[in-house]
Amino acid sequence: MDGVIADTEAQFMDWYEKEHGIRVPREERLGVPEQDGFPDKTAVRRYVYTPGFFRTIPVMPGAIEAVKTLMEDYEVFIVSAATEFPQCLAEKLEWLNEYFPFISWTNIVLCGDKSIIDTDYLIDDHCKNLDFCKGKPIMFNGSHNVNQLHHTRVMNWDEVLALFAQEELSV
Amino acid sequence: MDGVIADTEAQFMDWYEKEHGIRVPREERLGVPEQDGFPDKTAVRRYVYTPGFFRTIPVMPGAIEAVKTLMEDYEVFIVSAATEFPQCLAEKLEWLNEYFPFISWTNIVLCGDKSIIDTDYLIDDHCKNLDFCKGKPIMFNGSHNVNQLHHTRVMNWDEVLALFAQEELSV
Repeated sequence: MDGVIADTEAQFMDWYEKEHGIRVPREERLGVPEQDGFPDKTAVRRYVYTPGFFRTIPVMPGAIEAVKTLMEDYEVFIVSAATEFPQCLAEKLEWLNEYFPFISWTNIVLCGDKSIIDTDYLIDDHCKNLDFCKGKPIMFNGSHNVNQLHHTRVMNWDEVLALFAQEELSV
Repeated sequence: MDGVIADTEAQFMDWYEKEHGIRVPREERLGVPEQDGFPDKTAVRRYVYTPGFFRTIPVMPGAIEAVKTLMEDYEVFIVSAATEFPQCLAEKLEWLNEYFPFISWTNIVLCGDKSIIDTDYLIDDHCKNLDFCKGKPIMFNGSHNVNQLHHTRVMNWDEVLALFAQEELSV
């Protein structure tokens, strides 16, 4: 969800700018872990525990249409590491209901560790999830993961669709 | 969670008694789907959407000590069908933090359909989850499931521990 269908980095930049009056561009965070990506090192950690943060994240460009397209051929589940931040659970469901109302509650998983999730593919922005996933891992590009190069990488949702179109051809 | 570590049926009986002044014993619900288990057929459906319902469910007898014992040899995950009832998400986490504080947020999964959960065992009170699980299914006895006989059944948490002790002997 975060960093894949939700543009969590854009939200960090927006909230940081609101608080500190400075817009720290993505280029300055390349290869930097998310929590260290801004001059005020307490910011990210504070934001993710603030009510409203997860409810108001902008949708990742192209995500809504691309997920709809994938659902024509695949059963799509939203699997979000969320139980670390109890206040975000309801916000994440409300967010999904607003932007992805076509995804049923049956296909939403709010979890911690994703190691027990068994899907044919996993699109994620973190190696901690992709390295041990049971299906094919797909790294969704984000500033923090640009140096983690051992998984197939997609730069955006157009590239996700292109990848799956190719998968279908190769079956 | 419900019907396994949380005695959801006891909570239904308590809430029904509070509302209607009648205690409908377990014996009258044998083989009856949960939502049909009380004379007022609207009751169960109303209760599960009522704030506070999930937060105040009594713990299943023996569950806390048994889960602690299992954690000596197994990695235990709590996997709860919860996304159908958005108001219950935070309540379920709070409930777990109160009664099972030794279970990390990393090992909590709040989901819909459990079909993408891949564990070696699944202890559950519903065939809809057990029939398609990837590991060994274990049916936790409940009034509503007494006629569903195609899975190994445990009557209580003592029997869960006995079953796993036997599993270890047979390895």
